[in-house]
Amino acid sequence: MPGPTAYFDPATVDSLPAATRDLVERRIRVLGPAYRLFYEEPVQFVRGRGTKLYTADGTEYLDAYNNVPSVGHAHPRVAAAIAEQAARLTTHTRYLDRALVDYAEDLVGEFPAPLRNVMFTCTGSEANDLALRIAKAATGGTGIIVTANAYHGVTTEIAAISPSLGGVESLASWVRVVPAPGDGDFAHDVRNALEDFVASGIRPAALIVDTIFASDGVRPFVPGFATAVAAVRAAGALFIADEVQPGFGRLGTGMWGFARHDLVPDLVTLGKPMGNGHPVAAVVARPELVAAFGDHARYFNTFGGSSVSIAAAQATLDVVRDENLVENARVIGDYLLEQLPTIDGVLEVRGSGLFIGVRVADDRVALGAVNALKRRHILLGESGKDNDVLKIRPPLVFDRADSDRLLEGLTGVLA
Amino acid sequence: MPGPTAYFDPATVDSLPAATRDLVERRIRVLGPAYRLFYEEPVQFVRGRGTKLYTADGTEYLDAYNNVPSVGHAHPRVAAAIAEQAARLTTHTRYLDRALVDYAEDLVGEFPAPLRNVMFTCTGSEANDLALRIAKAATGGTGIIVTANAYHGVTTEIAAISPSLGGVESLASWVRVVPAPGDGDFAHDVRNALEDFVASGIRPAALIVDTIFASDGVRPFVPGFATAVAAVRAAGALFIADEVQPGFGRLGTGMWGFARHDLVPDLVTLGKPMGNGHPVAAVVARPELVAAFGDHARYFNTFGGSSVSIAAAQATLDVVRDENLVENARVIGDYLLEQLPTIDGVLEVRGSGLFIGVRVADDRVALGAVNALKRRHILLGESGKDNDVLKIRPPLVFDRADSDRLLEGLTGVLA
Repeated sequence: MPGPTAYFDPATVDSLPAATRDLVERRIRVLGPAYRLFYEEPVQFVRGRGTKLYTADGTEYLDAYNNVPSVGHAHPRVAAAIAEQAARLTTHTRYLDRALVDYAEDLVGEFPAPLRNVMFTCTGSEANDLALRIAKAATGGTGIIVTANAYHGVTTEIAAISPSLGGVESLASWVRVVPAPGDGDFAHDVRNALEDFVASGIRPAALIVDTIFASDGVRPFVPGFATAVAAVRAAGALFIADEVQPGFGRLGTGMWGFARHDLVPDLVTLGKPMGNGHPVAAVVARPELVAAFGDHARYFNTFGGSSVSIAAAQATLDVVRDENLVENARVIGDYLLEQLPTIDGVLEVRGSGLFIGVRVADDRVALGAVNALKRRHILLGESGKDNDVLKIRPPLVFDRADSDRLLEGLTGVLA
Repeated sequence: MPGPTAYFDPATVDSLPAATRDLVERRIRVLGPAYRLFYEEPVQFVRGRGTKLYTADGTEYLDAYNNVPSVGHAHPRVAAAIAEQAARLTTHTRYLDRALVDYAEDLVGEFPAPLRNVMFTCTGSEANDLALRIAKAATGGTGIIVTANAYHGVTTEIAAISPSLGGVESLASWVRVVPAPGDGDFAHDVRNALEDFVASGIRPAALIVDTIFASDGVRPFVPGFATAVAAVRAAGALFIADEVQPGFGRLGTGMWGFARHDLVPDLVTLGKPMGNGHPVAAVVARPELVAAFGDHARYFNTFGGSSVSIAAAQATLDVVRDENLVENARVIGDYLLEQLPTIDGVLEVRGSGLFIGVRVADDRVALGAVNALKRRHILLGESGKDNDVLKIRPPLVFDRADSDRLLEGLTGVLA
C-alpha cells in the first residue's frame, strides 16, 4: 500500500476545479474520512481497455499501477463470461455446480501436489482471515509472525497482523513482527520470534508473508527464507504464502511467488487479480489442514464461489494461460529491470516480472514523481515503510511500447 | 442458517445417481469437508428467472428459500447493468467515481437522518466486522452482546460473536449471549449482560442483532427492544442493526427491519440482497462514529464500492422501488401469514413480509418437510436452535400463484 503522502489532501479541496470540487465534497460528506483519493488532483476514469484508462473527455492514461485488472482493463472474454452468467444464474455453493468443481480442480492443478484443497471467499482479507482460522485450528496455536511493514487486509483479525495499517488497533499480543528481508537476517529474526513465543507461553500458529514483500518495498530475493520456514515448521507452526499480490503470474517466473524461493507453503491465499476485478478470492491448502478445520467448523460464504464469481475466475485464468501472460511478465519485466537502473535519480531497482520497486532519494522525490507522472497521464504508486519506493505493477498485458512510455516519463520527472 | 440436518450426508454418496455421485465426490475431494450441500439428494440448477430455478433437463423449481436474488433470479436490469459496466471499466474507490457518490447518497437517503455515512465492503461478514471495528474505536469498549443463536458471519471476529456457528472457536471473553426475544425478557437480559460486563471490568461496545432474528427462529415482535437499546446507550455502547437478511424491503414494512421496532440504530450493516447476488455489502453509520474511526485508521477494500459492484447495487435498489417490491412483500406476506396457520401440522407462524418462520412439531418433521418439498420441486430451509422452524424467505417477486403452490406443497408434505 502506498503511504499517505500519495493521497489527495482534503484541506486543499478549494483548489480543485469546480466540477471536481463538488464531487469530492459530496464524496467526503457521504463516505466519511476513512476513505482516501489518489493524487493531489483526483481523477475520474470512465472506461478502460488493456493497459489504458480514459477520462470523460477522452484523455488516455497509461496504467502502470493497477494489479487487479491483471489481464487488462475490461478484458472482453472476462466481461463476456460475467455477462453471460449474470443473465443466466447466480447462486451459491450449497447447490451442486459443475463449473465450480471444474474451476476448483483447474486452480489446484496449478499448485504443487500437497496443495489439493481450495475454499472460496470474496476478498483477499477474507482469504487471509480464513487461512489464519485454519492455521490456528490445525496447530492449536495462536502466534503469528509477520514482517515489519506487512499488509494482509482489513478484517479485525487481519488488520491486527498488518503493521502498515497503523490505526486504532495496536498489534495483538499474539503477533511478532520481524524486519523485512534485507533489513535483517530473516532466518535469525524468525527464529528469535519463535523463541519469544515460547518465552511468552504462546504456541506459534504461522508465519505469513506476501512472497514479493510488496508493502515492505518489494524484496524479490530472500536469503534464509527456506531456513526460516523450516524453523517455523520445526516449532509446529505453518507457512502461509500470501499470493494476493504476486499470484497469477505477475512475477514472470511461474504462477506463484513462493515458487521463486523453492518453497511449498502449507496454505496459500489468493485475491486481487483472480477475477480481473470481480470480487473473488480463495485459500488453497493441504487437505489435512482443511480437515482439521472442517471437522469442527462448517464454512459458508454467501458470495464465495458463487456462479458469476467462478465464471469470472475461470475466464481470467484461461486468459492468463492463453495469452501467455506469465511469459509476457517475464520478458517485459526483464526489459524494465534492465532499463530502469540507467535512469538518473534511480538509486536501486528491485523486482521480478511486472512487480518492480524503484527506490529514489526519499519520500518527497517519490511523491513528486507520482504526481508529476499523473500529470503526464501515467499512473504509478509508492511503497515501503519510508515511502521512497516507486511501485511498478501494471496489468500483465503491459508491452514494450507501454514500457518505453513509462521509462521516458520516469526519466522526465526524475530529471 | 439452517441446521446441519438439512444437508447432504457424505456417508450416503454411494446412494446417489452415478452422474451426481461423480460430481459430488470430485467436489468433496477438492473443496474439503467444511463445505455443505443442501438436501438428501443435492441438486444442480443451470438457470433462473424470477422465483424459478431450472435444472439441466428443464425441470422447474419454485424458490421459496433464496433471499440473495431478492429482485428475482437473473433480473434483466441488474444483469444488464453488470454486463455494461464490466465491459467498460471496473476500478476502485481511490479514483473519483460519480456513480459511487450518486449511489451512496441514494442509499443513505433511504435511512433516517442521523445515518448519513456509508462504507462499502464485499460481504455481510466484512460489513459486520467493520461495524465492530468502528463501534470499538468510537466507544473505547470491547464488549459485544448477541442473541443465543445469532449468526453474523464468518471472519474470525464475527465467527466469535456467532453462537450458531459452533466450531473450533469458543465464544470470546468479550461476548455476552442473551436469550432470543420471546425466550426471555429481552430488556432484562440485555441489562444483565451490561452489568456482567461491568463486573468483569469489560467496557461494552455494542449490542448487535439481526432485526428479524432469523437464526433465532424469526422473531418479528420484540417486547422491551427499545428499553434494551436505551440501556445499551446509557452504558456508553452502541446499537448495531444487522440488516443483512431483513434489509432492502423483505419485511414489507419499509426498507429496513429496525423501523418495525421504531428504533434508529447507530450502525447498520447490509449485504446479501444488496446487489441481487453480486458481492457487495456496506456499513451505514452516524458520521461521528465514522469520524472517530477514520481519524485513526484508513480503510480500503479493493473490491468494496468498485464500479461493477455499484452498478449492480444501483440497479437492484432501482428495481426494488420501481417494481414496488416492499409493497409486494407486505401483500404476499400478509396472505401467507393468514393461510399458513390453517395448515395441519403448523404449530406457530411468525414473520413479517416475506420472512416467515413456520414452527412444526420437531426437527425431524422440519427436515422431512424440507426434503419432501424439494422432491415436489419447492425449495425451503429450516432454522432455529432446535431446527424445528421452516424458513420461508423467497425472492421478493414471489406472487399469489407462487404462494398457492407453496401452500399446497406444505399442506401435502405436512399431512
